[in-house]
Amino acid sequence: MPLDPARLFDPDPTQKSAAMYLYELVAKKPIYSPHGHVNPAFFSKPNYHFKNPVELFIQPDHYVIRMLYSQGITYDRILTSENPRAVWQLFASNYFLYRGTPSGIWLDHEMWEVFGVKEKLTGDSADRIYDQIVHMLAGEEFTPRNLYKKFSIAVLATTDSATDTLEHHQAILNSGWDGRIIPTFRPDNLINLNASDWIQNIHLLEKVSGIQIGSYKEFIQALEQRRSYFKSMGATASDVSPAQPITAWLSPNEMEVIFQRALQGKPAPPDAVNFSAHMLIELARMCVEDGLVMQIHPAIYRNHNPQVMKEFGPDTGFDIPVRTEFTRQLKPLLDRFGNHPNLTLILFNLDESALPRELAPLAGAYPAIKLGPPWWFLDSWNGMRRYFDQVMETTGIYNTVGFNDDTRGLLSIPARHDVWRRASANWLAGLLVRGVIDREDAETMIHELTDGLVKKAYHL
Amino acid sequence: MPLDPARLFDPDPTQKSAAMYLYELVAKKPIYSPHGHVNPAFFSKPNYHFKNPVELFIQPDHYVIRMLYSQGITYDRILTSENPRAVWQLFASNYFLYRGTPSGIWLDHEMWEVFGVKEKLTGDSADRIYDQIVHMLAGEEFTPRNLYKKFSIAVLATTDSATDTLEHHQAILNSGWDGRIIPTFRPDNLINLNASDWIQNIHLLEKVSGIQIGSYKEFIQALEQRRSYFKSMGATASDVSPAQPITAWLSPNEMEVIFQRALQGKPAPPDAVNFSAHMLIELARMCVEDGLVMQIHPAIYRNHNPQVMKEFGPDTGFDIPVRTEFTRQLKPLLDRFGNHPNLTLILFNLDESALPRELAPLAGAYPAIKLGPPWWFLDSWNGMRRYFDQVMETTGIYNTVGFNDDTRGLLSIPARHDVWRRASANWLAGLLVRGVIDREDAETMIHELTDGLVKKAYHL
Amino acid sequence: MPLDPARLFDPDPTQKSAAMYLYELVAKKPIYSPHGHVNPAFFSKPNYHFKNPVELFIQPDHYVIRMLYSQGITYDRILTSENPRAVWQLFASNYFLYRGTPSGIWLDHEMWEVFGVKEKLTGDSADRIYDQIVHMLAGEEFTPRNLYKKFSIAVLATTDSATDTLEHHQAILNSGWDGRIIPTFRPDNLINLNASDWIQNIHLLEKVSGIQIGSYKEFIQALEQRRSYFKSMGATASDVSPAQPITAWLSPNEMEVIFQRALQGKPAPPDAVNFSAHMLIELARMCVEDGLVMQIHPAIYRNHNPQVMKEFGPDTGFDIPVRTEFTRQLKPLLDRFGNHPNLTLILFNLDESALPRELAPLAGAYPAIKLGPPWWFLDSWNGMRRYFDQVMETTGIYNTVGFNDDTRGLLSIPARHDVWRRASANWLAGLLVRGVIDREDAETMIHELTDGLVKKAYHL
Repeated sequence: MPLDPARLFDPDPTQKSAAMYLYELVAKKPIYSPHGHVNPAFFSKPNYHFKNPVELFIQPDHYVIRMLYSQGITYDRILTSENPRAVWQLFASNYFLYRGTPSGIWLDHEMWEVFGVKEKLTGDSADRIYDQIVHMLAGEEFTPRNLYKKFSIAVLATTDSATDTLEHHQAILNSGWDGRIIPTFRPDNLINLNASDWIQNIHLLEKVSGIQIGSYKEFIQALEQRRSYFKSMGATASDVSPAQPITAWLSPNEMEVIFQRALQGKPAPPDAVNFSAHMLIELARMCVEDGLVMQIHPAIYRNHNPQVMKEFGPDTGFDIPVRTEFTRQLKPLLDRFGNHPNLTLILFNLDESALPRELAPLAGAYPAIKLGPPWWFLDSWNGMRRYFDQVMETTGIYNTVGFNDDTRGLLSIPARHDVWRRASANWLAGLLVRGVIDREDAETMIHELTDGLVKKAYHL
Repeated sequence: MPLDPARLFDPDPTQKSAAMYLYELVAKKPIYSPHGHVNPAFFSKPNYHFKNPVELFIQPDHYVIRMLYSQGITYDRILTSENPRAVWQLFASNYFLYRGTPSGIWLDHEMWEVFGVKEKLTGDSADRIYDQIVHMLAGEEFTPRNLYKKFSIAVLATTDSATDTLEHHQAILNSGWDGRIIPTFRPDNLINLNASDWIQNIHLLEKVSGIQIGSYKEFIQALEQRRSYFKSMGATASDVSPAQPITAWLSPNEMEVIFQRALQGKPAPPDAVNFSAHMLIELARMCVEDGLVMQIHPAIYRNHNPQVMKEFGPDTGFDIPVRTEFTRQLKPLLDRFGNHPNLTLILFNLDESALPRELAPLAGAYPAIKLGPPWWFLDSWNGMRRYFDQVMETTGIYNTVGFNDDTRGLLSIPARHDVWRRASANWLAGLLVRGVIDREDAETMIHELTDGLVKKAYHL
Repeated sequence: MPLDPARLFDPDPTQKSAAMYLYELVAKKPIYSPHGHVNPAFFSKPNYHFKNPVELFIQPDHYVIRMLYSQGITYDRILTSENPRAVWQLFASNYFLYRGTPSGIWLDHEMWEVFGVKEKLTGDSADRIYDQIVHMLAGEEFTPRNLYKKFSIAVLATTDSATDTLEHHQAILNSGWDGRIIPTFRPDNLINLNASDWIQNIHLLEKVSGIQIGSYKEFIQALEQRRSYFKSMGATASDVSPAQPITAWLSPNEMEVIFQRALQGKPAPPDAVNFSAHMLIELARMCVEDGLVMQIHPAIYRNHNPQVMKEFGPDTGFDIPVRTEFTRQLKPLLDRFGNHPNLTLILFNLDESALPRELAPLAGAYPAIKLGPPWWFLDSWNGMRRYFDQVMETTGIYNTVGFNDDTRGLLSIPARHDVWRRASANWLAGLLVRGVIDREDAETMIHELTDGLVKKAYHL
């Protein structure tokens, strides 16, 4: 379906033309993607090919599949490897469900801009579009490496378990390809004592680090060793996703006692919360020392639907946000490192009530804190509009970090960054036509929001 | 006062004309009112007549009277049956208080559209307008039955205690009138053990069901019997309004023990919360079995002002919302029935912070959940605007249910639905002029938001 | 930098011209400033002169300095009395940080409107602008008394400790100057038992009241004596800023026991919360009796950054809001005085989630409650827009109180009121062009929002 070149902008002609002017300054700039979940294996083999649009657009995208499930289309009909054409037909017949949603905007963008699909996707056009996409995917232009170039991606950060050996990243480096696919250090499964596979992960950590882990101190050494390895592979950032951003400093003895109980598989009831609370500060301390950026993505109830989890596993659309709090919960961490010039702590958030109340004032005062972009359910036109509205007056743009696409879907990356650039341009155009900033300011700011802030914050 | 035909729409000419176009497609369509509080007695007698505008517009409407009270006009001056002309004069002299409020919009609509009042209501015009309305109310055209027809109402659901004998609904059916006034099963006063009249309600339930209730099992049987009766009288939905949407599954033994303590008037402190928490799941189970829709209207602090409650009773403007939570509290219910194809669970909400955070993601994933429209204090132009903004991107319109007017005021029904249709048209026009949807989508969606979704969700 | 005469208004030409029309009706009206923190000493000496723009714009303004600090500019470089020209240079070089922030809007306004600065402030123009401002400040026109007149201030309320002797207010009165600088009674440091200097404050209270305080009853008498003194000095209002708006009525005996423990420096753990909870009701009782307005500014975590607090003291940008709740917490106070015609209780709020949920319904029902304007982080263009959006439909404008500037910065007062008047005009223009109100209503309402409501609510 053809895309309006001035899409998403406010309809007032003055604002729209100012937005268009600002957008065009940055529309073609390289993409910095400092946080996401694209599979690095796509790039380790030079000739990797996606097979069909089901594998590409539907099955890996929990934003997409949950909408079908919510309408009673069960996952056995979607998450099957048999007959992808039938899955595509089912999806196309229900494509109207995505009207007005970010998934709809991204999918329309991908089909038009990447595949040149000229028809609206419906049950009727499904087959033709399927054939067209399958045909194009087989072409040389559509290997992930060539898409990376086509999309003008400058950096693509993946998210990797702390115990990951980063073999795909290694293979990419060895291949001499000049794309920049960098890992991100994410130790969640070592920090969450409630994870059923925590012990196995400790064993895995021992194995990949070569450090025997009999004590908390050795655990910390092993983590530091992995961080050092990730840095050597290009990482500039770490990430952690605690149930709540609770922080607390425990003594080495207290941590040792908790760690020993955990090693023996006998944690006491409050151990998991205390362990995680201390580890957030410990990770901040490591960031201060090794210079990795710290990201926190808190307050999601993961795998909320036990039946779906049992049958189809995680990342199937049933991670549901919960209320959260930063002012009190982050204070112990900030007491230690909030003023430290070496720490960059990027906070993400899905509880918008905390945005103007807590996060904007915190990011607008502490030198260590930067505010992450609208994330996940808020990575949308209105989510961005509300973010600019609720955050910028208190925080100022220089305490924010541009955009993260946070996606599994390689093809959605340009679509998502395009929405951000349009939202930024439209917001700045609103300030410009209201006389709050002048044209010179607006021009500087659109570049900052597109790539200046992200490069600086993530040390790219 | 004359009404602007393009009222409420955004002022940008492109959006406004798109909104007008979409609005006109549905402006005259029949009204489905699946949840409200109009008195069924208005319809059981063919020649019921409202007497005056005080009885019609002011006294039964807690939205209206609380605004007067908030300005120091005590209820003895408003809620009196003596001298309605003086009450009207007092109201008219203070009509400026409603400037910019939904009550003001509805009242202006009702006076202009229903009564053709051509003057602005003020202390000066009060008498003339009073006379005009009283005169018209005496006419044949203004019986509730004829207003129902005049307003093109297709279905009007009332809300009825589980122990109600539905005599007015019966009388309507017996009369052969073809208006569709259907009951809604609301068992709140049987589920809330803290209600001072709980025992009396149990006795009433025994009486109307003909089932002696000595055990929890018999209590459930009696409830099921009433549901069956409500269904036979046309009900398609149930409703419950817990203090919080807390759910928990207790064993039959635990429930029996609690029930026996309650029957003896000696509930233990946590009994009321536990009983209600289990009953929400039990009611969901009944819905799965008998096909009634389940509605939850949670998290209101009822009768917050004890002095007003004592002197003037409930529904006098002192029900105040409280913060609420769905992700955790609803989980036990969803664990049992969230994936069940027979359950339609419509969630209402007055804590907007939970909308984008919890309700939009829940409704956008669980097949059983549908998101109710903006309710009560949010049943307003801006409440609707924020609802579309905060919900639709994540939930998609097909997991919502159109509009509920939820009103006691028969005359406000067309006014309220008109605001919803305008808000829907304006939102869709915004998507259209921003290139997010095309005209064909917009046309389909305005019909869905007007009557398609509500008919499907409520099985009408 | 030149200011756009139609700045801030929505760009749609119809709305913009309606906003301009309404704004111009009130743009030059006198300023009522019923709550703020300007130093009364500025006015007690007729020839007080500000020395330089650092002392004027930067150092006393925690909105301004925190933004510099958040970008790693440490306070020793800003909060120094040495070399103000260098501080100004540092500020000017970083003035881009304020793009799109309210501080930027106010500073631009002050420089253009008050000092006629025609250049944009940058590192390059810093010196020239410094010289221009220093030169002008030395002139007769720029004494605080003459600025008060120049700004058309009608009343300026300061905020004063309950133990303050109000010597500057007395000196102003004695001087015969006709400016109206009135005190506000703020007893926070006598009510918060956790304050490290509580005992010293009690001794101070003894001294200034001439009442020996050995009992809770004498404490109350001394407070009442001070209120009486404040009233005699022109005060019309009191203020209190509790950690949370928790209220509870304790018996005289309970309060006596707590008070005695506190006098002995041995408070029990819950004493501080209980004492403050009761005192809020006691203060409401005093307001009912002596007619002072009650203001509550709750739910700030003060001095969140211990390092900055230790080195640079309070009011340095590290007061961070926390979530709050009104429906339950205020109920005990409202049970006693919520219906009382003598009480005006103005509630302020930084947790916007509570605005449409709790505060709008409470203020729209209780005669005692008025809703305060958007405060602190919300005293901004978008904060005001959201306030009008979230509050007015439920509360109605007549349960609000116009604007408070709440500032330390005398020069920012006209800038802040100008933003409010523009925001009010733009909001009313939006209602007007949408046909919700007519021109006559809009004209009345812009006057109410500018000075009508504030004069009435604060008894000015």
